[in-house]
This record gives sequence, C-alpha cells and structure tokens, in this order.
Amino acid sequence: MKSQVVTFLIKCPDQKGLVAKITNFFYNKGFNILSCQQYVNSLEETYFMRVRLNAAGTEISKTELEESFLELAVPLQFKWSVKYSNQMQNVAIMVSHTSHNLYDLLERSKEGRLNCKIKMIISNHDKLRSIADMFQVPYYHLPVTNETRELQEAQIIDLIETNEIDLVVMARYMQILSSYFINRYPEKIINIHHSFLPAFQGANPYKRAYERGVKLIGATAHYATEDLDEGPIIEQDVKPVTHDSTPSTLKRIGADIEKLVLARAVKNHLQHQIIVSGNRAIVFPEAGE
Amino acid sequence: MKSQVVTFLIKCPDQKGLVAKITNFFYNKGFNILSCQQYVNSLEETYFMRVRLNAAGTEISKTELEESFLELAVPLQFKWSVKYSNQMQNVAIMVSHTSHNLYDLLERSKEGRLNCKIKMIISNHDKLRSIADMFQVPYYHLPVTNETRELQEAQIIDLIETNEIDLVVMARYMQILSSYFINRYPEKIINIHHSFLPAFQGANPYKRAYERGVKLIGATAHYATEDLDEGPIIEQDVKPVTHDSTPSTLKRIGADIEKLVLARAVKNHLQHQIIVSGNRAIVFPEAGE
Amino acid sequence: MKSQVVTFLIKCPDQKGLVAKITNFFYNKGFNILSCQQYVNSLEETYFMRVRLNAAGTEISKTELEESFLELAVPLQFKWSVKYSNQMQNVAIMVSHTSHNLYDLLERSKEGRLNCKIKMIISNHDKLRSIADMFQVPYYHLPVTNETRELQEAQIIDLIETNEIDLVVMARYMQILSSYFINRYPEKIINIHHSFLPAFQGANPYKRAYERGVKLIGATAHYATEDLDEGPIIEQDVKPVTHDSTPSTLKRIGADIEKLVLARAVKNHLQHQIIVSGNRAIVFPEAGE
Amino acid sequence: MKSQVVTFLIKCPDQKGLVAKITNFFYNKGFNILSCQQYVNSLEETYFMRVRLNAAGTEISKTELEESFLELAVPLQFKWSVKYSNQMQNVAIMVSHTSHNLYDLLERSKEGRLNCKIKMIISNHDKLRSIADMFQVPYYHLPVTNETRELQEAQIIDLIETNEIDLVVMARYMQILSSYFINRYPEKIINIHHSFLPAFQGANPYKRAYERGVKLIGATAHYATEDLDEGPIIEQDVKPVTHDSTPSTLKRIGADIEKLVLARAVKNHLQHQIIVSGNRAIVFPEAGE
Repeated sequence: MKSQVVTFLIKCPDQKGLVAKITNFFYNKGFNILSCQQYVNSLEETYFMRVRLNAAGTEISKTELEESFLELAVPLQFKWSVKYSNQMQNVAIMVSHTSHNLYDLLERSKEGRLNCKIKMIISNHDKLRSIADMFQVPYYHLPVTNETRELQEAQIIDLIETNEIDLVVMARYMQILSSYFINRYPEKIINIHHSFLPAFQGANPYKRAYERGVKLIGATAHYATEDLDEGPIIEQDVKPVTHDSTPSTLKRIGADIEKLVLARAVKNHLQHQIIVSGNRAIVFPEAGE
Repeated sequence: MKSQVVTFLIKCPDQKGLVAKITNFFYNKGFNILSCQQYVNSLEETYFMRVRLNAAGTEISKTELEESFLELAVPLQFKWSVKYSNQMQNVAIMVSHTSHNLYDLLERSKEGRLNCKIKMIISNHDKLRSIADMFQVPYYHLPVTNETRELQEAQIIDLIETNEIDLVVMARYMQILSSYFINRYPEKIINIHHSFLPAFQGANPYKRAYERGVKLIGATAHYATEDLDEGPIIEQDVKPVTHDSTPSTLKRIGADIEKLVLARAVKNHLQHQIIVSGNRAIVFPEAGE
Repeated sequence: MKSQVVTFLIKCPDQKGLVAKITNFFYNKGFNILSCQQYVNSLEETYFMRVRLNAAGTEISKTELEESFLELAVPLQFKWSVKYSNQMQNVAIMVSHTSHNLYDLLERSKEGRLNCKIKMIISNHDKLRSIADMFQVPYYHLPVTNETRELQEAQIIDLIETNEIDLVVMARYMQILSSYFINRYPEKIINIHHSFLPAFQGANPYKRAYERGVKLIGATAHYATEDLDEGPIIEQDVKPVTHDSTPSTLKRIGADIEKLVLARAVKNHLQHQIIVSGNRAIVFPEAGE
Repeated sequence: MKSQVVTFLIKCPDQKGLVAKITNFFYNKGFNILSCQQYVNSLEETYFMRVRLNAAGTEISKTELEESFLELAVPLQFKWSVKYSNQMQNVAIMVSHTSHNLYDLLERSKEGRLNCKIKMIISNHDKLRSIADMFQVPYYHLPVTNETRELQEAQIIDLIETNEIDLVVMARYMQILSSYFINRYPEKIINIHHSFLPAFQGANPYKRAYERGVKLIGATAHYATEDLDEGPIIEQDVKPVTHDSTPSTLKRIGADIEKLVLARAVKNHLQHQIIVSGNRAIVFPEAGE
C-alpha cells in the first residue's frame, strides 16, 4: 500500500472520545495522519470525520486495514467508506445540446486537473460528437423517446457497468432519468442545475429568472435523487445581473457559473471530500491537497 | 429652481428618435444634462430613461417645466415622474424584534449617508424603543392581534399621512400587512426578506436554508405588493456558507447581508434610480453621484 | 450598410448639449439608436459616449457617415472611432507554457461566444501545439533568447501584419515584449496578469501571495503598455482563499479566475465597450446585447 | 471550571502522531472535544491545532490543566496558549474622524454579537464623542502632535494597562503609532486598512485606486506590526466598482466593506480562531460556534 493516500469518511452517533479513538487507531497502525477534519452536527448529535493517511510507514495490507477497522467501527456504529489514491476513478459524462460544461470537464481531465479517467460521453443527441472526437473520448449516441426510455436507460446501465464507471456526471443532460436508474447509483450521479436551488427548480430557469427580475443568477451542483432538483447540494455560486440582461444574456453569464460549479463539485467528489447525511451534503474543504 | 438636481424617470413604448427628442427638449430649456441613462426592453418594445438635469442655467419654474414637458409626454405616451433634489424625503421605519437593520438605517441617516429624514419608527413591540431614543427618533408602539389588525393599520396610516411620509421601510417587520394597506402605497413600501427570493418565500427562511443544505444564503429587498414576497426585486446579495453553519449561524451571517441589501435598496429609491415595470424593477446605477 | 450595428466611441471636453447634439445627428441621418451610454468625468471635465446604431433605416454609406460626422466632431473636439458589426475582427493569441486561457478562448471562439476569428497562436515554446491542432488554428513556434529577441519580435510583427490582426491577446505569454513592439499596437494588446493589480506586479504573484498571507487572490486583464503590468485595467476579479492554500493550490484556484477575467476583457474589447483615457479604461457595460 | 469552553491554540514542528497524542491527552483528562481543527504547513513542516473543549465532565482546575499540559507541550516543542470562555475580554477602540467602523463595533457589542466588553474609545480628535455617549462608553480625547507623540502614547498605554485591555482595535485611527507602542502589544492590536493589501499601502488608498482605475476596491484587517500595513492579514474583502466611481464614491462603497472586514477580524480574534506564524495569520473557521 506504499506511497498511497488513504481517505476514510466516517459518520456515527456523537459521543465522547471519538477523535482520540480514531486517530489513535491509525497512529498505532503506523500511519501518518495527513489531515483530520471533523464536523459535529449538534442538532442531530451526529459526528462526521474525514481523515487522510499516508501509508508510507506501514506494512499493513488493505484487507488487514479494513478488517481491523471493523473492531472500531462496529461498536461505535460507524457508517464508513475508504478510498485509495491509486485507484483511478472512471467517469461517464451525459450531455444533450449544451457544450460548455463538456469542454470544461474534458479540458480539466486532459490537463491533469481532475483526478479521474473520462471513459465515455453519452448523449441523446449526436450534436456534440465532434467535441468527444477532439478529446478522443468515445461518444455514445442513444436517442430517447417516451416509448424507448426504458430501453435507452438499459443501454446506459450496460455501458456504465461494462466500463466500471464510478461517477456519472449529468453535464446538462436534459432528460429526466427514471427512479429505477437514479436509485441504482446513490451518490454516484452529479447533476448541474442552472439556478440557485431551491429557486427555479424544473424547466427554463433563466427565462423564469428574467421574468422574476432577480438581481443574481446562479447554478447548483447536486447529487441526483428521484426528487427532481432536490438532491443534496454540493456546490452553488451566483453572479450579479441587472434588468438589462435578456434571457439569452442570462444564459451566457450563467454558462460560466455552471462550468465552475460543476467542476468544483466533481473535484470534491473525486477527492472524497463529501459525506451525505439525509438531504444535506457535508463537503469538507481541501486540506492542503 | 437654481442649484437643484432635477431627475426625470420616463417609461414609454419604444420608437425611433426618443433620446434625441428628450435630450433636445431639456437642452432647449437651458438645462445641463448631468446624466442620461436609458434601457430598452426589446422583448416588450418598451423604453426607459432616467435623466438628471442641472437647473443652474435656467430660469424656468417647476410648473412651467412640468407643463411644457406634457407637450412631449402626451404624444409619445410617457409614464413619467419628476423629483427635485431640494425636496427632502420623509421615511418611516417599521420593525418588530430585530435591531440590525434599524441601527444601520439610523446610522446612515444620522451621518448624512442617506438622503432622507427618518421621521418615525413604528413597531408592534416595545423592544427596540431604546434604539430610537439613542438616535432621537419618535417611536410608536402599536401592538397588533388578529382582532385589532384593522385598527392598528388605521393608526399607522394616520401616522404616515400626518407626517407626509414618502417611503415606508419594513426593516424586519414580522406582521403581514393587509392588501388594503399595501395597495394604498404602491412602490412606496420597501421590504427586506431574509433569503435570495424566490427561494424560501414566507416564514423561517434560515431554518429552511439549513434543512435544504444550501451553500449560499442571501437577502432580498423588494417593493411590497399584496402577493407576499413577490414584489419587484430591487437588490439581492448572498454569502457562501458551509454545512457547519447552524440555523443560528446562518441568522448571524445573514444579518450582515440584510443590512447592506436594504440600505442599498433604500438609497436607490431615494436617489430616484428605480422604475417599476410589471413585476420587474429597472434599477439604474448611480451616474457619478 | 443595411442590417449592421454601427458603434461610435467618443471622447471630448465636457460641454452643455452634447447628448442632444450627438443623438440628433444620428436621428437626422435615419439611424435607430439602439443604446446610448455616457460617462462624465467631472474631475477632468471630460465626456465619453458609446452609441450603438441600427443602420436598417438609412441609405447612407460608411464614407458619407464618417465624413458628415466630422462636421460635428471637429468643432466639439471629439476623439472618436467607429466600428461596423460586419467587419470580423482577427485575433492572435500569444502563449508560453500555460494552457487554461488558451483552451478557454479557443472554445468560446469555436462555439460562437466571442465575436472574432482566432487566426493564429504564437508561442516561444512548442508545448501547446496539440491544443492548436485540436482547434485547427495555425501555431507558430518562435523561440526567443535575449540575443534573438529583436529578430523574434520582427517575425511576430510580420505575422500580425500579414494576417491583418486587430487584437493580440497575451494569454500567459511569459516574455517581456519590447517597448518598440508594445508601442506599435496601442490598445491592441490585452495581457492577463495573475494577481489583483497593483498588488504583486511582476514575477511569481502566487508565491508572493502565499508569503504575504493574503485572504483573496485575483487576476487582472489590462492593455499592455511599456510599463510592465501598469496599463489600463479592463477587468479584475478575486476569489477567497485561506491559510491552507499552498502556492500550487493558489495557482489552481487562480487559473479559473484568469480564464473568466481574460475572456470578459477580450469580449469587452471586441464589442467596442472600451474607451481608454489616460491610464484608466472606461468600460461601458453591455446594453442588452 | 464547569460549563466552560476551553480553547487551546498550538503550534509545533510537524511529526507523526500529534493529533492522537493531543486528543488523547484531553480525552484522558475527562474533556469532551467540541472541535479539533488542524493545519499542516508542509513547506515549513509546522503543525497547528485549535481544539475546543467542554469542561462539563471534568473536575480538573485551570492550574492542574495547564501544568499537566506542559508534560505534553515541552517534549513536543509546542508554542501554545489557552483561553477560557468565562474570561470576558476588554477592548479599546481607537478612532480619528471616521465613524462607520465605530458605530458598527459598538452596535455589535451592545447587541451581544461580539464576545467582549468595549471599555473605552480613544481618539486624537473630539469629533466622535457623541457616538461614545450614545452607547455610554468612556471617550478619551488625547490630541497629538509630532512633539507630544511620546507623551500621548504614554497616556494611551496607561489607559490600556489600568483597564486591563486585551485587544486594541484601530478603527480608522489615522496616526502612525511608534514601534515602541506597537511592539509592546504583539498580536493585540488589529488595524483596518482601506485597500486590499498589499495594493495601496500607506496614505489615500481610495484616491490612488481611482487613479489606477482598478475594478475592485477592498479592505484589509491585520495585526499591527512596526512595518506599516505589513502585519499578518486576518480578513480581506472587495467589491466591484466601475470607471464611474469618483474617489468619494469609492470611499462610500469602501466604508461598507471596512465595517464587515474589521468586525469579522475582531470576532475571529475574540473567539481564539487565530494563530500567527511568521507574517501569516492562520485563521481557523468557526466550528459550529
């Protein structure tokens, strides 16, 4: 396990001594604790920890680590996961007509600024294929109608599973996925919505923002759940606008917000900074990473 | 009318030659045009102008100016208003329990940073009287129950009219005013709502922001209309927050946003920067003022 | 000249009647005034106007327009320029090692979000050639040493003039250009500097930002002048950072700011929104464009 | 020590096992660890921790706690400090002509939003006395000339020491304090500077911001050191401005930034969120406080 960074994400009932017990455990196994971030939700009496370990000084195997961790995790009622930095994560991007998020993710990945491999792009249209070609990423055109939805989703599921996809990014995919699909991949699908949720859920947020006369427009990246645009929020941002912005101006200004918000959310997910609790996403900041 | 700034706000159907005709009119009357700001809503084919004039070089009286302006305004179908900088505007502030907006407005007014006279503070509680005393502003404690609402509002209306109030600022007044009251003062009542509308309309926005797990909280200043929290938006702003913020932390962070948003909205109103069109507020920026 | 947008940028001594005279002139020639934006610098008694005209209703030729405009411009001492929307502007991008601004400008241009043709990329390194190839833009690798600087700049000048380049964008070109070069293209070279100028002028701004412990980092786009990093500022933006950011984290966060700031500055230039006055850039906002 | 929050701030050379050792220590003494925040500066191999403890479950006295902590602190080479929540901190505010920061701090303190007692206001002018009177805080008018500087500072020192002042806030005090004075109170004097440092150090930052044509103005709160405007930065913020802002507009916009930046810095200091390291301020965020 040498020269790896190991990241544990832990959630459990709050109780005295948790930091001491957890950090002791890793210290005694020979790990160097690179960072240890905690969050206590005192309203719900719940404790959250993200701990990053350097495995350089230990001979322990992954199996030994995970098995011995159970001795701590079971009595303290942890819900936990562990990630190893040498496991490259596979990503699929789903798009429809809009290109800006797609370019942005492909560029970041190509230039080594996102810690993942983008294995494929899936679209219900053929429109963005040339972008996939530029970046030499396979492009699957899977058209969909109300009649073929079940079949198309089965094709997508097949692609996801054959390619061992770890994360699906809906980068302005304008179809509603079935609950069956969504529930198959909990906390594995990130969607970008082009408003500051919960404002302007659903269709045409820029047009509605114009009509409401808001002085800010925004974008929200969240985990997809079966309730449309209601999943746990990972990232949000806004920009000021004025009365002078038409719906198409808002769309253009919004595109730049969407790009940054989605890219940050994907990075936070890939760096294991997120623990979901109910409908809230605990997003630990980077710790000198 | 010497050494005054005269501000015209104009709205009319868009048509060729408007800037030329309007600026010509004022030029020929001997005014110096300090600034001339226009906005064309091409979706609705409507034209908006804010023009500020220096009256130093003209002998014209207010009556003459307004009467002769009709010759332009009637054929071109202007909706218009005119304000004179030597008419000090009278303001009433309505509050309940929360003091931060009240302090802020009183301080700005006292230090000459708001172009108005705060004539009175009206509250359904006696709690904030000491602040009124500090700033030597009359404080009217008018308690209200569902049974006495009509009577209480009649008392408020009496105060407003006796004191020739030009603007009512609801600085966290936590009662819902009747449609009768609201409709009596169109575009004369500014309310601060502690969320980035249209998100979290209605009660307890900070608690609901916590529960929804948003990553931004905000505040919105708008003209009050009979549809609660749905009037034309004048100003909005937000601040980033994290999962670590409790509802009471959000309240504290939000207080600073509320102060700035309300103060800017009130200033924009007092400087005649706003034209309302439907449910949208056209807010012209300051022009070197 | 049918179906064109004509944009005049005007600077002159402030005097009574300017708006009226200028808008009258265009009205009488049969133009529809799409927008008319002015700025009065009362400290310097200088007047600035950006006026956009729709030529649909006029038969006048460019030559006639420009010649007859002189009748207004000469007595009122205008410095002015005029642009026609059907003249596509040619852009050259200069880069060294850093790819993020290059990708961003190429993507915006390719997707029709920048009103220009990117004719070439010039670099003192061969490193970014594959990006040029992806977007099918010619790439000129012109290495430079202190000894060959004059020669290399002569090659660049030759490329600029042969290709009728209207705007040179230094998208993280890490060589200092000679005064001779810079002065040949006044207000035609836009540079991005990776700090909020005037803080951290010169080399290594992110390292110095780390050492100074600032809580914000930024980027600045400005016209290049012979005084390094001191030209008129077109756009600036910042993001909050914390003590936890290393110089390389700052670089990563900063890249996203640099992209947006440079893209906005280039767009503002290409849409003729900028008048330079001394060392200040008057940047008119978009007017419903 | 019952029902107190105890906050330890620790800085030491980085080494394996620190979190475990420190959290174990407090766990074994019977404390509940409310939050435990760490920062590792890997460039300088230095470790920083802020740990907040609930003393409800322990019988230990302050003296016992601090003495036994030395057993950990000495071998691990800690620089450390400890604060107890029941020790109300005394604050002195120094001002000259400008009232907005003074109002803001007095209001926050009066309304229980700053955890301190403002014991006095010291000024080289008599101008702001009425504000002190409104809030019933003693006001000391201590005029100063170059000849009387030493004497005046001696009077201030006397006031500070007699009143057991823990923190001096320079809320736009426009005199330069001597090195002798500054060095007497290391990390005990917070200054607000009206620019985004290191831009526009020294006098007249708004005028210089106007002349440089910046598109953002800002404010910086920092610990005062003998190098003017060069001490460790605690908080910074900016707002966008345009070419249309005169120096006096910048001053007005800037006032609102100054208020928030100084208030946050003072709060961060009073809540023991800051560890200074060299010229950098490590500012831990609030942890659900």
